[in-house]
Amino acid sequence: MKAVVLLSGGLDSTTTLALAKREGFDLFALTFDYGQRHRIELDKAQYIAKHFGASDHQIVKIDLRQFGGSALTDSIDVPTHRDEQEMASEIPVTYVPARNTIFLSFCLAYAEVKGANDIFIGVNAVDYSGYPDCRPEFIRAFETLANLATKAGVEGKSRLKIHTPLIQLTKAEIIQKGLELGVDFGMTHSCYNPIEGGISCGVCDSCQLRLKGFQQAGVDDPIKYKIP
Amino acid sequence: MKAVVLLSGGLDSTTTLALAKREGFDLFALTFDYGQRHRIELDKAQYIAKHFGASDHQIVKIDLRQFGGSALTDSIDVPTHRDEQEMASEIPVTYVPARNTIFLSFCLAYAEVKGANDIFIGVNAVDYSGYPDCRPEFIRAFETLANLATKAGVEGKSRLKIHTPLIQLTKAEIIQKGLELGVDFGMTHSCYNPIEGGISCGVCDSCQLRLKGFQQAGVDDPIKYKIP
Repeated sequence: MKAVVLLSGGLDSTTTLALAKREGFDLFALTFDYGQRHRIELDKAQYIAKHFGASDHQIVKIDLRQFGGSALTDSIDVPTHRDEQEMASEIPVTYVPARNTIFLSFCLAYAEVKGANDIFIGVNAVDYSGYPDCRPEFIRAFETLANLATKAGVEGKSRLKIHTPLIQLTKAEIIQKGLELGVDFGMTHSCYNPIEGGISCGVCDSCQLRLKGFQQAGVDDPIKYKIP
Repeated sequence: MKAVVLLSGGLDSTTTLALAKREGFDLFALTFDYGQRHRIELDKAQYIAKHFGASDHQIVKIDLRQFGGSALTDSIDVPTHRDEQEMASEIPVTYVPARNTIFLSFCLAYAEVKGANDIFIGVNAVDYSGYPDCRPEFIRAFETLANLATKAGVEGKSRLKIHTPLIQLTKAEIIQKGLELGVDFGMTHSCYNPIEGGISCGVCDSCQLRLKGFQQAGVDDPIKYKIP
């Protein structure tokens, strides 16, 4: 039973990989090198895929900077020191246009070639409520599409499922779930704007969500921060 | 009124571009360099985008060979000398897994960044009946997805439309439409397996469909073939 798992090297996707493993899936990890500012994510993803015994790990290079439109891939400044209300007030500048649509499309190609009927993606609709492509209705629409898009779909045999085990969990709940599964979060990376040596900034939205999650889960975050 | 138009440099996508231009759209052409065997397609696409006065033309490099699974991108032989029945009997080995899903996902990103509400794709459900991602139900599912996937989708303002003006036309009808619009088909390229100098082989499925189309349209194909 094969599953394609989208793996960024962050806390959410690593917990998702651990969940897929516990469910007994043969793991095919897929990571994107999309011109993100920090290559540390890719190194972490490689380490994590190996750690969980993935049968295969593909790193797909795509240039999401080409069209522009996001602070994660452009020269727009990543916002820092924002409170929850500010983060929730609008779609963040770190949103990358159509990113999850593109990511899931490649997952679909990989799944079709490998004969996998299951795709795992660690999207979250609680902390990332501003991202259109983290919503359950988006995922359901992609699943419908996926079952029409493949050879099996033509033959009426397609039963591709998109698993989003974290979609309704808070960051603290994701951390607790990961810890139950024995995930060492020291392997993971979340910062949008790491300083030299891969140290997390501690002040970008992603660091703040992570730090708050660990605080609420009542455990220490094992990674290093510039500003604790 | 901006439109993203998927442009391969072939007969269908060039006719689609001409149609979008006649409808008054400001053209944003998108071409994929996906490890196809023949770079001549890319040169043709650049020439065609310029010829039609596109406001922008992006060539996106993605590696669809990475996962394998197709004669167009792998070392599997492209079939030749097949009759219509053979072509129609199964999903062809030239099918690239999830290709149109991936292509449309990038179109969506480009459209969102440029503020375009219209995407044109020259898919055809008559001659390419074996391709799952050329079917009208696939296109409709992608349109539904697209309207959930973007910032405008969250705000309930999305009205993204996927135009498939050729989907129910025969090759001969596409050629006739192109000629009405003044398309010079000498600019276009269709062969899966061109020989040196970009001369079309005349015997692959794509060449055979093209040649039959010109024959049925009662006009001469202006491009050169090795086997006429």
